[in-house]
Amino acid sequence: MDYFFAPGRNHLFVPGPVNIPEPVIRAMNRNNEDFRSPAIPALTRTLLEDVKKIFKTTSGTPFMIPTTGTGAWESALTNTLSPGDRIVSFLIGQFSLLWIDQQQRLNFNVDVIESDWGEGAKLDILASKLAADSAHTIKAICIVHNETATGVTNNLVAVRRILDDYRHPALFLVDGVSSICALDFRMDEWGIDVALTGSQKALSLPTGMGIVCASPKAFEASKTAKSVRVFFDWGDYLKTYKTGTFWPYTPSIHLLYGLRAVLDLIFEEGLDNVIGRHRRLGKATRLAVEAWGLKNCTQREEWFSDTVTAIVVPPYIDSAEIVSRAWKRYNLSLGLGLNKVAGKVFRIGHLGYLNELQLLGCLAGVEMVLKDVGYPVKLGSGVAAASAYLQNNTPMIPSRI
Amino acid sequence: MDYFFAPGRNHLFVPGPVNIPEPVIRAMNRNNEDFRSPAIPALTRTLLEDVKKIFKTTSGTPFMIPTTGTGAWESALTNTLSPGDRIVSFLIGQFSLLWIDQQQRLNFNVDVIESDWGEGAKLDILASKLAADSAHTIKAICIVHNETATGVTNNLVAVRRILDDYRHPALFLVDGVSSICALDFRMDEWGIDVALTGSQKALSLPTGMGIVCASPKAFEASKTAKSVRVFFDWGDYLKTYKTGTFWPYTPSIHLLYGLRAVLDLIFEEGLDNVIGRHRRLGKATRLAVEAWGLKNCTQREEWFSDTVTAIVVPPYIDSAEIVSRAWKRYNLSLGLGLNKVAGKVFRIGHLGYLNELQLLGCLAGVEMVLKDVGYPVKLGSGVAAASAYLQNNTPMIPSRI
Amino acid sequence: MDYFFAPGRNHLFVPGPVNIPEPVIRAMNRNNEDFRSPAIPALTRTLLEDVKKIFKTTSGTPFMIPTTGTGAWESALTNTLSPGDRIVSFLIGQFSLLWIDQQQRLNFNVDVIESDWGEGAKLDILASKLAADSAHTIKAICIVHNETATGVTNNLVAVRRILDDYRHPALFLVDGVSSICALDFRMDEWGIDVALTGSQKALSLPTGMGIVCASPKAFEASKTAKSVRVFFDWGDYLKTYKTGTFWPYTPSIHLLYGLRAVLDLIFEEGLDNVIGRHRRLGKATRLAVEAWGLKNCTQREEWFSDTVTAIVVPPYIDSAEIVSRAWKRYNLSLGLGLNKVAGKVFRIGHLGYLNELQLLGCLAGVEMVLKDVGYPVKLGSGVAAASAYLQNNTPMIPSRI
Amino acid sequence: MDYFFAPGRNHLFVPGPVNIPEPVIRAMNRNNEDFRSPAIPALTRTLLEDVKKIFKTTSGTPFMIPTTGTGAWESALTNTLSPGDRIVSFLIGQFSLLWIDQQQRLNFNVDVIESDWGEGAKLDILASKLAADSAHTIKAICIVHNETATGVTNNLVAVRRILDDYRHPALFLVDGVSSICALDFRMDEWGIDVALTGSQKALSLPTGMGIVCASPKAFEASKTAKSVRVFFDWGDYLKTYKTGTFWPYTPSIHLLYGLRAVLDLIFEEGLDNVIGRHRRLGKATRLAVEAWGLKNCTQREEWFSDTVTAIVVPPYIDSAEIVSRAWKRYNLSLGLGLNKVAGKVFRIGHLGYLNELQLLGCLAGVEMVLKDVGYPVKLGSGVAAASAYLQNNTPMIPSRI
Repeated sequence: MDYFFAPGRNHLFVPGPVNIPEPVIRAMNRNNEDFRSPAIPALTRTLLEDVKKIFKTTSGTPFMIPTTGTGAWESALTNTLSPGDRIVSFLIGQFSLLWIDQQQRLNFNVDVIESDWGEGAKLDILASKLAADSAHTIKAICIVHNETATGVTNNLVAVRRILDDYRHPALFLVDGVSSICALDFRMDEWGIDVALTGSQKALSLPTGMGIVCASPKAFEASKTAKSVRVFFDWGDYLKTYKTGTFWPYTPSIHLLYGLRAVLDLIFEEGLDNVIGRHRRLGKATRLAVEAWGLKNCTQREEWFSDTVTAIVVPPYIDSAEIVSRAWKRYNLSLGLGLNKVAGKVFRIGHLGYLNELQLLGCLAGVEMVLKDVGYPVKLGSGVAAASAYLQNNTPMIPSRI
Repeated sequence: MDYFFAPGRNHLFVPGPVNIPEPVIRAMNRNNEDFRSPAIPALTRTLLEDVKKIFKTTSGTPFMIPTTGTGAWESALTNTLSPGDRIVSFLIGQFSLLWIDQQQRLNFNVDVIESDWGEGAKLDILASKLAADSAHTIKAICIVHNETATGVTNNLVAVRRILDDYRHPALFLVDGVSSICALDFRMDEWGIDVALTGSQKALSLPTGMGIVCASPKAFEASKTAKSVRVFFDWGDYLKTYKTGTFWPYTPSIHLLYGLRAVLDLIFEEGLDNVIGRHRRLGKATRLAVEAWGLKNCTQREEWFSDTVTAIVVPPYIDSAEIVSRAWKRYNLSLGLGLNKVAGKVFRIGHLGYLNELQLLGCLAGVEMVLKDVGYPVKLGSGVAAASAYLQNNTPMIPSRI
Repeated sequence: MDYFFAPGRNHLFVPGPVNIPEPVIRAMNRNNEDFRSPAIPALTRTLLEDVKKIFKTTSGTPFMIPTTGTGAWESALTNTLSPGDRIVSFLIGQFSLLWIDQQQRLNFNVDVIESDWGEGAKLDILASKLAADSAHTIKAICIVHNETATGVTNNLVAVRRILDDYRHPALFLVDGVSSICALDFRMDEWGIDVALTGSQKALSLPTGMGIVCASPKAFEASKTAKSVRVFFDWGDYLKTYKTGTFWPYTPSIHLLYGLRAVLDLIFEEGLDNVIGRHRRLGKATRLAVEAWGLKNCTQREEWFSDTVTAIVVPPYIDSAEIVSRAWKRYNLSLGLGLNKVAGKVFRIGHLGYLNELQLLGCLAGVEMVLKDVGYPVKLGSGVAAASAYLQNNTPMIPSRI
Repeated sequence: MDYFFAPGRNHLFVPGPVNIPEPVIRAMNRNNEDFRSPAIPALTRTLLEDVKKIFKTTSGTPFMIPTTGTGAWESALTNTLSPGDRIVSFLIGQFSLLWIDQQQRLNFNVDVIESDWGEGAKLDILASKLAADSAHTIKAICIVHNETATGVTNNLVAVRRILDDYRHPALFLVDGVSSICALDFRMDEWGIDVALTGSQKALSLPTGMGIVCASPKAFEASKTAKSVRVFFDWGDYLKTYKTGTFWPYTPSIHLLYGLRAVLDLIFEEGLDNVIGRHRRLGKATRLAVEAWGLKNCTQREEWFSDTVTAIVVPPYIDSAEIVSRAWKRYNLSLGLGLNKVAGKVFRIGHLGYLNELQLLGCLAGVEMVLKDVGYPVKLGSGVAAASAYLQNNTPMIPSRI
């Protein structure tokens, strides 16, 4: 039942799907249940309440849809917008590209602001567009918080500020797929109207749940949005929220129990500690990259991502060979370079349920692979740089003091 | 982590989600994996090939979409039809009703042929509509093979014959959610253009995978279908089929491994034996209902369903009370009556990974609940009728002879 | 990985190993751990405290030994007795026979009091032996509380009374393997000196933990007992209890977590409710046997066991054929007749994590098997008798009211 | 259900219990079964055959006893020897000490040959004892192949040669607890009479199965051995081997399925590759220790263990503090120094289902802990030394080439 057997654990460092905590695997190890019995609504009720905490919202309404991030995107767009609506969208890498493709195919009028891959969103252009839009033809701003392909984190606070500066009523839609639950994310404080994530990212669950959270303003917009939608329609969910049955169609009971378990772990660790852990692991990874003499694909420090690092390889090396060799020789799963950066970068995902020594094992593996493919890395150099930082900055495990 | 604890096993007799076989639970008990490594495509390749067998198709193309049956419906419709297209759809119970609601919201021109709940599709009306449609304005016939709300199985062979009789080119779209892998279903032989099912039904998996299978004709239609679709678009899948990467977005690795395991079990038992087992359990259930002096909601024998039996209770009893009491006293999960038949019927789902003694335990439980709520059942009568049939008709377990 | 595949669940009605609750399977679904970290001692500490509750003792000292019931027997004997010591032991069936065999091979001087299989211990003979033993040459009374081979429950209160009547200081050693946690058992109140059980019986765990509980008097005896013992030595455990490390050698971490989970379930249900449930299922089983016109192997009502029922078949039937056929045709696992009653009885185990409908499914299966082998049973008769009783006596599930 | 929660995986580097492969955890994720059905004997039959391969024996008879290594010791001794028998036993560390303690408590006349902790067995003394024993009063030689406390591997070939040189008929009993399935071990070729291991060591299973393998000569000896034994008696097993029922008492079905799964993994990797992997990881660990400027507790290269490395810390450091801190800060489980070397050494277990990057993560963690406790380690130095070796010596994963 396992394909391509290898001894020892797989070292999973793609930026999703990520490692599932053992207690979460346990929680999902179960038979099906009748989702119409009182048990599942009782469970769902706790989830709808608690899942808001990871969005840092009290006023938002979450929808836990049996879909992926791509479906969550579609739900965010079709519930709030009408065909032909003008939206501003930032193209900074493969995932923002895919979202824009979806926006166009859903017949929105997409005003794309493109950056070089490795750069963040050009917010100055957004500002000028808003400045020019006194008629408020722009209905929404769509931005990927953390571009998983290039390891670029956009500044959502700045987006909010620009919107506020121009008193622009556009909806603020955010893909938080590789950020929420790992990076600092504050839906209410930052005035985000729709935020979304997928279960297999920082939530450390299997794929299959897209979580979309709608602000009251987004919810208001949904009443007049004319995009065709059924499966992804918030209205159908809201009806069941009112009756307390909670599900317009069958949910994945396994993911509900898994979500319950992972939220319990997150709250036990403390969401801010979770975010701090990601900051620590991100920093350590970047120090290793520097020690190896390699360049971060992310072009400025302000955009450094604490969930994924895209590393540029020298021109004489094919980054796909690094990924392939890591898997074939060391049972290490790294992320490929995608599209424009295919062959040029490889990626280390450092998000989800992960700790310092797991990362150091990965970094040691990357060093060996780099050497394998002919890059003159000094073995141990990246680990040394990372562990010097970690040894100074890792807190004691609270429950064990 | 369990809500509303009760000793002993839950007896799960709702018509989905159904019991997951222990080997399948085992197969899904695992960490995430990189779905871009060679392992997942290798696994997917076997699944795409083998899943066709449960549709009995060699020419169809399957899509294993991370969604539910509702999403599978949407995929079937939006990939083959354009807004405004005229379709004929049969309303015979809650699930056909919901599909029709979706069809209407997706802006098709739905020509509804309604039956009383408990009756099958009125195929004579279909015939007259086709007869009158020499212009071929009807683009598709949509039918639910097995209406889960009333336990009615429609005759797909007859639908095909009518289409053939009138040489009508309409697409033939079939919801096989509570039939495929349990009832006799022959996609190629019966000329079905799109067939679909959900993982949590006869496939005995958790919820989360909608499987849609498209005939070459449906696939041809998809090239010109103008319905807006992205997440559910077949085209995106087909591109990845060609490259051998197989997934336009992240699949649920757990469900893939689960599907592999359950297909292995099905093929080990033999698909025809699986269908024979459902026939046997369906018949046994109906014999019990008869022995109890109760009426099957299904009004004619030709429509009897071998996956779910809806049982009409006397007017002085609220069927919801039966369902509630079964759960509260005997840890037995039965199906509620839905919509028009709410309070009037309760349902026994007898599909998926189930055997004779499990069913007899359920029937014994139903008898006790009936007595609890004041119906003068003779305890043991239904079990006696069912087991008389089963004792005569249950084969030896082949692997154990 | 499964031998002799069959569709649907296995109906496990041997009197051990019994069904493991799903939450317990989950709790054991884990990697190994360092048993010398603070985590395992912290867990062990709760277990040693809580496991006493299922023995109903506050003064006893439990030992959770990585062994089976046979090893627990050996631990009970070798820690309290010296070679040549005279002990009185009751032979009433296969398991008491095996214990006596062990006693003899451990070089004790065993004074066997034999009963016909199906009868309980002859306590009047014990009384006369004690009466004659003013010199107190009898060092211990060994008795199996519930003889699993014949379904006979001995009266431990009466044994205690006899010992008290004669003010006899003999140790009172009790095999509670198929009783503790299912039948009424009160170590302190009944003055039991050593009580023992195995994890795979009423505790509903996998095999592998023998739990032995020693009274202060037994513990005192262990200081002078000269039987050779190392692996089973209580002294080695006691040393680690004092240091708080708890384990003289590596424990099964999985069984420790499993035990924690199952104790939590037992306390949630309430130990007295657990015992009440066994009483109810035992009674229902016996009513079915009666309805079938078959004889209980247990010869008097006072000895009826609420954990296992041995059923005598007519002379023209081989009971082994019943067991074999149940497994081969209905995926039903029944207990064989052992030794003297081989071929003559088959056994239904009704202990552990089990509820009413599971039992009724089993009884329906037994009826079909009986018919299969030519016994003129009226199908449904046993189920009717059992469910008439259960429908009157099963309480609502407290958490679901 | 988890004590002392920490984010990310536990890094388990104690020399047992070790990491369980995910496919093995899966295989054990199941309900109990009737061990008297045909399924368990069929499974057992394959295990008894295949388990011989890990001992490299064709003539031996294995016993898979529900016990621990301590019980396996007891079974080896009591089945082959009689009280008062003279045996020669080597004391070289904590586990040999414990075995000797058991030997003495079982009333053998133990002739102890003691070494300094960190040294191997003094085989010259054995030679002189055998030379002096023309009367063949020595009945057995007991030796621990790999002393887990000090990381010393004894030379079994040399022991055999000495026995042969003196044509001495003493039985050759070997504790292979931390060697079999990890180190080169050849029962037949080396003329070992009883070899034993525990499931939680290199077999990577949970604790609970002691596997003892007896040569024909040992088996012959068992016929006259007078040591008292019941639970551990081979004879009881042999009787069931003849009847094909295989179990004198209830086995742990979970461990049987787990063993089946792990043997499949071992044979898929290839036993010699498994041993080669341990050699590689052992060497890498020792290179790291050297790079850190620390001393291996093992005093000569010939004794270096490829399954565990005991590392001597400078006198100003308490090694227990290292172990404690590793667990409390980095979720890293290291082995304590035991008894004579308590506080002086800490241990890295590198056995079982483990690969290169797991080890490098551990080594990186050890470096940080060393720095934490004030040892002036150069961070990255050990990882660099180990990975330089591993990068040169790790083969491609065969299934992935």
